[in-house]
Amino acid sequence: MSKKSKSNLDDTRLRQLFESKNFAFLGSLMKDGSPHVTPTWVDIENGNILVNTAIGRIKHRNVSRDPRVALSIIDQNNQYEMVTLRGKVIEQITGDAAEKHIDKLSKKYIGADKFPRRSKGEQRVILKIKPEKIFLM
Amino acid sequence: MSKKSKSNLDDTRLRQLFESKNFAFLGSLMKDGSPHVTPTWVDIENGNILVNTAIGRIKHRNVSRDPRVALSIIDQNNQYEMVTLRGKVIEQITGDAAEKHIDKLSKKYIGADKFPRRSKGEQRVILKIKPEKIFLM
Repeated sequence: MSKKSKSNLDDTRLRQLFESKNFAFLGSLMKDGSPHVTPTWVDIENGNILVNTAIGRIKHRNVSRDPRVALSIIDQNNQYEMVTLRGKVIEQITGDAAEKHIDKLSKKYIGADKFPRRSKGEQRVILKIKPEKIFLM
Repeated sequence: MSKKSKSNLDDTRLRQLFESKNFAFLGSLMKDGSPHVTPTWVDIENGNILVNTAIGRIKHRNVSRDPRVALSIIDQNNQYEMVTLRGKVIEQITGDAAEKHIDKLSKKYIGADKFPRRSKGEQRVILKIKPEKIFLM
């Protein structure tokens, strides 16, 4: 399979993978160092990847302990268009920005202005991921 | 999101996720302990998950060093039907069985009797994954 290695997201084909409704699969590290993979909504902004989770969830706990992540996306309309990358969570953003951001993702993925699956008392957090190695296939 | 934790694949909904043409996203560990995620074809047999790669590829090198993996699948026809699991590579199978198995996966995913993307001289290997914790969402 031909691969193209890149270090930034400045590529039309690559941006389309992130901007469409494809789920991303986020890999992080459990406390014992074992891998964890979970599907997640995703967004890009200024060359970084944004994932939105709730404070205290597994992926939030994992990246708070060790910021190293991996992420992979395939195009739901052409499963052989794919990207896989490694990088780090360089910032966590909470508060109003994170609450608005989950609504933005909700709009993108399911067309709902307000994210309909908030649990009582949950606080959202944006995980800002800086990609380091990108492979487009 | 409601979750159901299981320790085996004996569940119709779960089996369907694996038996249809959905890609799986396999998480493994790089040499430095960082996570790696890659989309892959997948199969199940006797309660274990089978992934087929070529000897020497990143995921083969990773699981040969540390057998701990994670894996996640979403249904391409309903992205909110998903499973995520953690487990270990308990066996690697090479030789004729692995060559036949990649043809089986090729038939399943792209309808081709023979896997059309063999590189010259590559040797296939089946990674047999025993799931330990399964979350169906």
